[in-house]
Amino acid sequence: MSDLEMHPTRWGDPARATALPDSARGLVELAFPTGDHTVADDAPVSLPPVRLEPEVLAAFAEVLDADQVLTDDRSRRLRTRGKSTPDLLRARAGDLGDAPDAVLRPADAQQVQAVLEVATRHRVAVVPFGGGTSVTGGLVARREGFAGVVSLDLVRMKRLLATDRVSMTATLEPGLRGPEAEALLGEQGLTLGHYPQSFEYATIGGFAATRSSGQSSAGYGRFDSLVTGLTVATPVGPVSLGHAPASAAGPDLRQLFLGSEGAFGVITSVTVRVRPRPEILVHEAWRWPSFDAGVEAMRVLAQAQLLPTVLRLSDETETALNLADPDSIGGSAAGGSLMITGFEGTPEAVTARRTAVTALFSDLGATLAGDGPGRAWAAGRFDAPYLRDSMLDVGVLVETLETATFWSHLREVYDAVSAALIAALGEPVMVLCHVSHVYETGASLYFTVAASEGDDPLGKWLAAKRAAMEAIVATGATITHHHAVGTDHLPWLESEIGPVGVSVLRAVKASLDPEGILNPGVLVG
Amino acid sequence: MSDLEMHPTRWGDPARATALPDSARGLVELAFPTGDHTVADDAPVSLPPVRLEPEVLAAFAEVLDADQVLTDDRSRRLRTRGKSTPDLLRARAGDLGDAPDAVLRPADAQQVQAVLEVATRHRVAVVPFGGGTSVTGGLVARREGFAGVVSLDLVRMKRLLATDRVSMTATLEPGLRGPEAEALLGEQGLTLGHYPQSFEYATIGGFAATRSSGQSSAGYGRFDSLVTGLTVATPVGPVSLGHAPASAAGPDLRQLFLGSEGAFGVITSVTVRVRPRPEILVHEAWRWPSFDAGVEAMRVLAQAQLLPTVLRLSDETETALNLADPDSIGGSAAGGSLMITGFEGTPEAVTARRTAVTALFSDLGATLAGDGPGRAWAAGRFDAPYLRDSMLDVGVLVETLETATFWSHLREVYDAVSAALIAALGEPVMVLCHVSHVYETGASLYFTVAASEGDDPLGKWLAAKRAAMEAIVATGATITHHHAVGTDHLPWLESEIGPVGVSVLRAVKASLDPEGILNPGVLVG
Repeated sequence: MSDLEMHPTRWGDPARATALPDSARGLVELAFPTGDHTVADDAPVSLPPVRLEPEVLAAFAEVLDADQVLTDDRSRRLRTRGKSTPDLLRARAGDLGDAPDAVLRPADAQQVQAVLEVATRHRVAVVPFGGGTSVTGGLVARREGFAGVVSLDLVRMKRLLATDRVSMTATLEPGLRGPEAEALLGEQGLTLGHYPQSFEYATIGGFAATRSSGQSSAGYGRFDSLVTGLTVATPVGPVSLGHAPASAAGPDLRQLFLGSEGAFGVITSVTVRVRPRPEILVHEAWRWPSFDAGVEAMRVLAQAQLLPTVLRLSDETETALNLADPDSIGGSAAGGSLMITGFEGTPEAVTARRTAVTALFSDLGATLAGDGPGRAWAAGRFDAPYLRDSMLDVGVLVETLETATFWSHLREVYDAVSAALIAALGEPVMVLCHVSHVYETGASLYFTVAASEGDDPLGKWLAAKRAAMEAIVATGATITHHHAVGTDHLPWLESEIGPVGVSVLRAVKASLDPEGILNPGVLVG
Repeated sequence: MSDLEMHPTRWGDPARATALPDSARGLVELAFPTGDHTVADDAPVSLPPVRLEPEVLAAFAEVLDADQVLTDDRSRRLRTRGKSTPDLLRARAGDLGDAPDAVLRPADAQQVQAVLEVATRHRVAVVPFGGGTSVTGGLVARREGFAGVVSLDLVRMKRLLATDRVSMTATLEPGLRGPEAEALLGEQGLTLGHYPQSFEYATIGGFAATRSSGQSSAGYGRFDSLVTGLTVATPVGPVSLGHAPASAAGPDLRQLFLGSEGAFGVITSVTVRVRPRPEILVHEAWRWPSFDAGVEAMRVLAQAQLLPTVLRLSDETETALNLADPDSIGGSAAGGSLMITGFEGTPEAVTARRTAVTALFSDLGATLAGDGPGRAWAAGRFDAPYLRDSMLDVGVLVETLETATFWSHLREVYDAVSAALIAALGEPVMVLCHVSHVYETGASLYFTVAASEGDDPLGKWLAAKRAAMEAIVATGATITHHHAVGTDHLPWLESEIGPVGVSVLRAVKASLDPEGILNPGVLVG
């Protein structure tokens, strides 16, 4: 098994689990007097029996290396669902009803192709599995109509297949986790610069299949914008796309597989733009009198094409109570809205951009908050999911959701989603928000919600999520900026792309996957 | 009729036609001693009869404003084919076999939708028509199996539907030509910044449908990268896409309609990113010791993210003999490779970028060639097609073709395409090339070819084009960087996207256009 598998009911590496910091515990108890809370973490679990017939398992074994068809409890349990709070609540409650019947681990694109042929022949649903970090139900396939469900774990496909130092591209296999890809590229002095919160576990294939966006998106771009080419195994055969940085040879079919969430094919390699590893990295923090003032500054910066590498603005509530580390990220006394900026590159490039940003921010009324908060943010940038586990342990329901819209609608969307969440969850509740992905025409909004679990935390959250999604749709924002559709967002996809858009996805799915074996129920209903 | 219709057998406005400059004439006669050449421009023409039944024409008339179903000779002739050299040769020879049976001019998206319903009912092929500037046979629909062919001229759909000054977006109707769109935006101090060579005639809808790229692409981006949203009329209903600058709500379906060349639907509006009109514009010129040295500098600039607004490099041959104005763009005596740079924006932004570029170019061995060549290029930037007509008048076959590839392959593609063209056309021949669209990972190559017409100029060119396309495919470059597929590039599309890619396009087409009435034979075979 992989040395980097996640805990079955928690995020990440148990050794790195965070006990709730005392400061946070105090606040939590003040806001959420939950009293004694039983951690349901070790509820007895029982996996459903393996439903696949032995001859089907044998057919898979025939096309894979020996011992790469796994049906043991641990393997199946670790491939059950993703890491949304509902996923964790179900796992903590011992519900393993969505466990795959088997885990298949192909070594290369040819084996992936062969697995798809066997699965098509035997009508077995195939769930591509990378880091297992989905927070939108992207790993829960519909079972009805299938002989069984297999998790196609790409963990063995971890090669850096090629680098082109002149064109500054690299071709990576899908199973490489963020740190593994950076390590391989780093040996050659290169970086991808893609750091989503899930970075430590999520994979190259997952970044592509879900249109991931990282914390350095202002400087490096979204993952989809880094992709110059990809190869995909589909039930009707492999496809290879990307002959140039840009093309007018019809629709850009790369953009059809990016975001396809395993429903159109299994991404077997991704060619990405890379950059030289930055010579220096600087993080700093600015304090704005209000969230609105900070948002306006982000807009000015984006439209002046003067973005730093990292640009993140917390609203007043997130500034006052940052879940990760309330002391270092600025206590509530200081007030206002905290912004983190990061600059990477050559010393000359960093100085030039930092000077321009500093001048502009000073003009616009911000004050430098020193480099402490920036350093603290950089140090803890991947740790929020550990803290969520600690909060769940003490009976506080914590979850996130995100959207994006155009600048002129940002405040309206922010207000509508906040109000919907507060109304749906009831007191005590905290809704925090930050903006961390900006464009010339608009930006993302990322909400973190904390509420008391109550008797039915799962039902409580699902109702709040529905309310938030309705608010997002009503204000015309996108149903997801970087978390993908999965099964959780599917009810609202038609609001996003219309019935004609849905019928196009169905047509593409039918042409690539005539038996519908690929991640059934995900993306395409 | 529109006041901006083009001449039926030439480019653009007859009043602006260029007599061959004396300097060019001398060179032409030296290289291509064609002797007396009869200009076949006024060959007698005869249009095929209108094949559409009166009741079908009446059905179209019912859904359009009165008098917007045109079947007169002039209207039909002016919508026959596009403006490739083969198109001009056929037009000059009086061949109007591809004339549409009628020209329909809808006033708005609802009328476009209604036309598609009538056309579907009566099995009439519909060719969306914007500026009529296609150079890839994008306006020649297959007739077989249809009751007739109509040209759907979007000339009346010229509104600026909305601007959002905060988000810096504008929503434009598809029939707006480049200068019309810039004029409307200019009234509000805005610009789109999209200036392809066809700018004066081509339309917003055409830019989107063909993935156009303009001469300022280094600063403003390709047209597809400017699009945040679009609405499309399809035979199965309208679709509206684009709720945010970026989204992870599945595949980016905007990218399926961008480049769809009228085969998936008729684009009825496009929402684009706009910018403030630049306060200043500076063009200047640099001389590099060789084309390779200039290409290397472009790569360094792109990978340092220090691009000017315009960046264009002529190879040694184009530098020595620039078709547009050989005197001002640097005579052959000076040698080397000429580069044009353009900087636009605020004075501060222009100064900052220009200073950085100047330092880098000086380091890399370039010498400033003054601002004369830059100014001359800017003044004549849309005139090359007029010169082509003048060359055809004296018996010189002139045509262009383009591709793009990654930096590491650029020289190989350049050599292979040049060699293929020279071998196919035979002496006397001139092959010129420039790079005018650059990315961090690669760049475009734009070839201009001049050869003696011989007895069969059309056949001669088609053979040369085939040879060039084979060279492009063999070297792995894209079959088109910004001219689209049309009918001319269709034989090589499968090399670009594979059989699976072709089957996806077919599936999308079948789902959106079940009767196949939309531009049949274009993009999808």
